[in-house]
Amino acid sequence: MTDTAASERTAAAAPAGDTTREELDAIAAAARRAFAVTVASTADERAAWLRAAADALDAARDELVPVADEETHLGTARLNGEVARTTAQLRLFADAILEGSYIEATVDRPDATTIPPRPDLRRMLRPLGPVAVFGASNFPFAFSVAGGDTASALAAGCPVIVKGHPAHPRLSARTAEVVGTALVDAGAPEGVFAHVTGHETGVALVQHPEIRAVGFTGSLAGGRALFDLAQQRPDPIPFYGELSAVNPVLITPAAIDARGDELATGLAGSFTLGAGQFCTNPGVVLVPAGSGFGERVAAALAATSAGAAFMLTDGIAGAFASGVARLSGHDGVDVVAGDPMAQSAGTGSPVVLRTTTAAVIADPATLLHECFGPSTLIVEYADVADALAAVRAVGGSLTATVHAEPGEDLAPIVDVLSEVAGRVLFAGWPTGVAVSWAQQHGGPWPSTTSIHTSVGVSAMRRFLRPIAFQDAPDAALPPELRDGNPLGIPRRVDGVLQLAGDGPGHRPAAG
Amino acid sequence: MTDTAASERTAAAAPAGDTTREELDAIAAAARRAFAVTVASTADERAAWLRAAADALDAARDELVPVADEETHLGTARLNGEVARTTAQLRLFADAILEGSYIEATVDRPDATTIPPRPDLRRMLRPLGPVAVFGASNFPFAFSVAGGDTASALAAGCPVIVKGHPAHPRLSARTAEVVGTALVDAGAPEGVFAHVTGHETGVALVQHPEIRAVGFTGSLAGGRALFDLAQQRPDPIPFYGELSAVNPVLITPAAIDARGDELATGLAGSFTLGAGQFCTNPGVVLVPAGSGFGERVAAALAATSAGAAFMLTDGIAGAFASGVARLSGHDGVDVVAGDPMAQSAGTGSPVVLRTTTAAVIADPATLLHECFGPSTLIVEYADVADALAAVRAVGGSLTATVHAEPGEDLAPIVDVLSEVAGRVLFAGWPTGVAVSWAQQHGGPWPSTTSIHTSVGVSAMRRFLRPIAFQDAPDAALPPELRDGNPLGIPRRVDGVLQLAGDGPGHRPAAG
Repeated sequence: MTDTAASERTAAAAPAGDTTREELDAIAAAARRAFAVTVASTADERAAWLRAAADALDAARDELVPVADEETHLGTARLNGEVARTTAQLRLFADAILEGSYIEATVDRPDATTIPPRPDLRRMLRPLGPVAVFGASNFPFAFSVAGGDTASALAAGCPVIVKGHPAHPRLSARTAEVVGTALVDAGAPEGVFAHVTGHETGVALVQHPEIRAVGFTGSLAGGRALFDLAQQRPDPIPFYGELSAVNPVLITPAAIDARGDELATGLAGSFTLGAGQFCTNPGVVLVPAGSGFGERVAAALAATSAGAAFMLTDGIAGAFASGVARLSGHDGVDVVAGDPMAQSAGTGSPVVLRTTTAAVIADPATLLHECFGPSTLIVEYADVADALAAVRAVGGSLTATVHAEPGEDLAPIVDVLSEVAGRVLFAGWPTGVAVSWAQQHGGPWPSTTSIHTSVGVSAMRRFLRPIAFQDAPDAALPPELRDGNPLGIPRRVDGVLQLAGDGPGHRPAAG
Repeated sequence: MTDTAASERTAAAAPAGDTTREELDAIAAAARRAFAVTVASTADERAAWLRAAADALDAARDELVPVADEETHLGTARLNGEVARTTAQLRLFADAILEGSYIEATVDRPDATTIPPRPDLRRMLRPLGPVAVFGASNFPFAFSVAGGDTASALAAGCPVIVKGHPAHPRLSARTAEVVGTALVDAGAPEGVFAHVTGHETGVALVQHPEIRAVGFTGSLAGGRALFDLAQQRPDPIPFYGELSAVNPVLITPAAIDARGDELATGLAGSFTLGAGQFCTNPGVVLVPAGSGFGERVAAALAATSAGAAFMLTDGIAGAFASGVARLSGHDGVDVVAGDPMAQSAGTGSPVVLRTTTAAVIADPATLLHECFGPSTLIVEYADVADALAAVRAVGGSLTATVHAEPGEDLAPIVDVLSEVAGRVLFAGWPTGVAVSWAQQHGGPWPSTTSIHTSVGVSAMRRFLRPIAFQDAPDAALPPELRDGNPLGIPRRVDGVLQLAGDGPGHRPAAG
């Protein structure tokens, strides 16, 4: 998503305030002790903790947003909205755990007729243990200290240790204080939440024996390095990384004919949003050759106020400048708008480039690699089959979008977009990720490292493992699995799904 | 589970009949082409394929079982039962995909009031692509060519390439012919199923660009090596390995007092079953010091017919002999029954060893390491807290069992057993794994490499990834997600779970 590696190097040069190894060990030991409480906590208790954290963040918004703006240059309007998104996310997870189906309660009563004969078996999910979260630079609230990874891990019953991103250190520290205090004041155990800093601390965190899983949003290089460390442990642990995406967009000839200018305006707005610092930025846009779409995007861009904008860090701005320079110097690539060679230090100015499907298919490693910032590459195709070959060359991406007209046969296009992406859009632009039950944020490598989402309710599944109880006395079972369904949660009994409310403790499902 | 590494070395010495790299590439390309069909197949179609494979295996049982017995020495009674288990498993997956909730269909209709505003989002699971399956030596049907990994991957819509285990090469080849022919005759695409052989072929398979996931049952050493290869790929893929477990059993003082002889008889039967070649073999049994339980197990063993038995391979027998010799020579370990130093080539004779909690906690790497074969280590404890410290030292295991008496407070014991195991038993013995909705076969490292099960309905989840469709025209959606729920499957709509039968195409849920 962002150039963590560059930012981390800056931090490593000034490790004075970094968390020490001794401090990390104490924090991890406290997380382990907290887990003994959270693993046995009820959904009611954890929902109260999450809501208290949300309330505290809302209450601290006027203090936090100016700090965030100083550190990230993202603007107070966007940042205020991001706080609201972050607290809504915490509350959605609270609703979801109360609804109860996330725990996948499954009861198989004894059956001597199955092969082999079946004892009494009851299955549910159980939290993994302390989770490490690596916040992103580009969403200092929603994907950082109290973002989706933290919310989903806490909801699942896992203590969280956040490695704060060095692009917003003061905001991270203060957010952690607000959240940590609110959680403990609401009854969560000491040690349930902590914040650490420093590049070497992050490395030690991924390798720490007490850590049972990692959530990460950041660059391909940084994420791959930490993924490798997690897998090379004596006891490998799940590493849920969201790394890199170009988010291809395919515009059909009919769509260009019908509303080319509208699409050009939409693209100009999407790829420059937040100085292009979105993991879902539309980086590759496939259009019919000869449609003049590039010039229309250039005209649309000129009509906006998008210009040079401060980027999250000098390192990210530098990586963007060298990225667009490299792309624009590539054989077969021409510049349609902006000046790749005239990027000022610390800022990014919009750049629109153009090439052909033949060029991207010949060198996908260069031309279909994420260039994080306000740029997009328009790729001209001969026909839709040619365009789909280029989409396939992308490999994996968070999103893939088609713009078509009513009546067009979308099946062959949807097949290919579904192959490469975790979210397929049929209108609009991929920037903007709703937080809901049906959301999927993740896709084939290198967009993510796993088959799970990092946004939406099912993100909790990453931090839970199944456990089955065989022939247990009722009193020894967690209440989710007891006879009579005392919590009234949805369950599967002898293979048959049963709704909440079939038991005495019915709860309304959350919307 | 079994000593694959040793067996593989034998095979590597005679690679004449091994699948070549060119053959593997052709097989993988055929699997990729088959995936274009299976990814779009209906649950009805795949259920028919699975049932056809089950029927064909049942019909071939009288041909296959004698070959299996020659190659594995497991006996025709056990092997006939294993065929029945294998075909029941194929049919259970057919039932489960028809029931439909495995696909996790989720519909969120647009909502402008959420933060951020929500478009129309619809989520379901989608098969990953071709899957590699490494069969186990010790279940030549149920965990081999047509076993649980194969059944769950095919049910999910993934083509399968099986690397046959060299401990039963003729059975593997013939089973693959039976299954492959039945699948294609039932309408599955050519290339949906293939069988390859050879150690180097297995390595190439895990690294092959067309392979999207791996299912593995085997040794810790062999599994770790392949896990590392899967994670070190340019595009890492999920590696679902079931590796090693000692399956601790804790017997309370009250249980020993009440029914010590019955428990001794139960243990003697369980650890010698199938010459101890079960991944769920009870390898470590915690009993009160001074209870004389070891002698009671020795007496129970003497009363059975368990003696020297041919093991699956000479390599496995040799590893067992050296394993029990190493254990019996360890400080603080004494021999209660059998003779660790008098194992004959190719066979395993039951061995009962005894030590203390202090000894296992001091050297868990030696004493709490799986010794695959007919042995068990009785560990004497001072009190239950002492016993639980030894259980914690186990780390991860497939199962953990407690034998207690009614009225005992099981909570502290269940807490610790749940920490280390994926299945917690309150009676009986861990050998025997029912195939059902609630089963969990997998636990913390090193018992498995992932947070999923390899047995039971949810094993399918390993080979599926989520995909979300945003603002899709109804006709462009898979039927599972269309308005009106045309397949009549269970879905979640706007956060509310809805049962099958809410739509027009109601299907009865499978039991």
